[in-house]
Amino acid sequence: MTGSVVIAGLGPGAEDLVTPEVRAALEVATDIVGYFPYVARVEPREGLTLHGSDNRVEVDRATHALQMAAEGRHVVVVSSGDPGVFAMASAVFEALENHPEYHDLDIRVLPGITAMLAAASKLGAPLGHDFAAINLSDNLKPWSLIERRLRLAAQAGFAMAFYNPRSKSRPFQFGQALTILREELGDNVLISFCKDVTKDGQKLLTVPLGEATEDMADMRTVVIVGNADTRRVGPHVYTPRYAPTSSESA
Amino acid sequence: MTGSVVIAGLGPGAEDLVTPEVRAALEVATDIVGYFPYVARVEPREGLTLHGSDNRVEVDRATHALQMAAEGRHVVVVSSGDPGVFAMASAVFEALENHPEYHDLDIRVLPGITAMLAAASKLGAPLGHDFAAINLSDNLKPWSLIERRLRLAAQAGFAMAFYNPRSKSRPFQFGQALTILREELGDNVLISFCKDVTKDGQKLLTVPLGEATEDMADMRTVVIVGNADTRRVGPHVYTPRYAPTSSESA
Repeated sequence: MTGSVVIAGLGPGAEDLVTPEVRAALEVATDIVGYFPYVARVEPREGLTLHGSDNRVEVDRATHALQMAAEGRHVVVVSSGDPGVFAMASAVFEALENHPEYHDLDIRVLPGITAMLAAASKLGAPLGHDFAAINLSDNLKPWSLIERRLRLAAQAGFAMAFYNPRSKSRPFQFGQALTILREELGDNVLISFCKDVTKDGQKLLTVPLGEATEDMADMRTVVIVGNADTRRVGPHVYTPRYAPTSSESA
Repeated sequence: MTGSVVIAGLGPGAEDLVTPEVRAALEVATDIVGYFPYVARVEPREGLTLHGSDNRVEVDRATHALQMAAEGRHVVVVSSGDPGVFAMASAVFEALENHPEYHDLDIRVLPGITAMLAAASKLGAPLGHDFAAINLSDNLKPWSLIERRLRLAAQAGFAMAFYNPRSKSRPFQFGQALTILREELGDNVLISFCKDVTKDGQKLLTVPLGEATEDMADMRTVVIVGNADTRRVGPHVYTPRYAPTSSESA
């Protein structure tokens, strides 16, 4: 059994954010597995089979990758961003758990630039102090748990990054999240909306929480909420390395 | 005034984790500024001046970078990992705040692979669910605030990544952090110690919290604490994408 599964992060979109490590893995792959638009980022070549699949079939897709590797193929599962942050790595390990016969397979994860850090870099340094990364989708966890995490993260003085803030099937939750954030943090903390980060048409918007509206976010947006000390300097948004004033007094 | 400051992330150590975007910035720089060991990762060439400096002079170093850019130089401030995560980006913006005369300078941040995500990739996917990133150093914030954040992050069911867990000048704090984590999470949650990640001599160790000891960490270690559902599958450590059992019942 000499096949392998590599779970590789393609970064947020710009080709010059793909690491040489990931490029090298793509060059020796026999099969590419992933969500259609990410598979479409891999250049076709002889000897390489592209297996694009739909959204929300992560575990099926991961199982297929394991099966092909068990047959001796060299499979790369492509993920956007970093595969370990709300992406394909956990899905592959969930599939592996269901298939003990594959536990000895050669499986490796290759990191990538995750959307929140690309977005933070374009804004300045809003995640320059302690922060929390939260997936706002309630597909895989109850909304009540997300609300609880937002409150505790705010009370801890964490800056926050939100993945999957809003979708057509979840139109109201993000508005509820904004209400909770205003209750906990007040109206003046800065919130940034980063749409299509590093891609054509990238849009950045920073406003105080009191002016944020739910339509500022969609599924292609990463949202970053500052802590009480996050502020603007020139055209940049940043969070100082030292302790935020509000949490210090808490 | 045509100079510039680029704050570039060199990643955790392996050269094939440096993005092409960062390589391109290093190739057109006139000056490299940073902590000695990071500056040493940049190949010398004619027309390039290397300005290595000591640890703990981040704002002085950043001010120097701004001054040179104002004189028309193309300065790259090098950071390990990602410059926006407990690294040089916030220090540059702190310096910029002290110098309004530089507010119009061309300043850009280029993201990199941050240590916690490189470490997570080597372990499997321990940060595959909501998580918090916390700098355990109390140089720039009070230890009491760190303790509070640890308790709230644990109560929220966040996995956690710790930067700067322990140093010679702070030998006791990490032991206190372990005590707090055991109080909040019990003895069975998995904790991973990742030393020199992606470098020669990389060491990975995963144990239940009840078996963790403070000497398992030093300044070259990133520590990752799972949530209640984090577990092993084959040789890997991962956190499922769905809600952890303990927080669901909380």
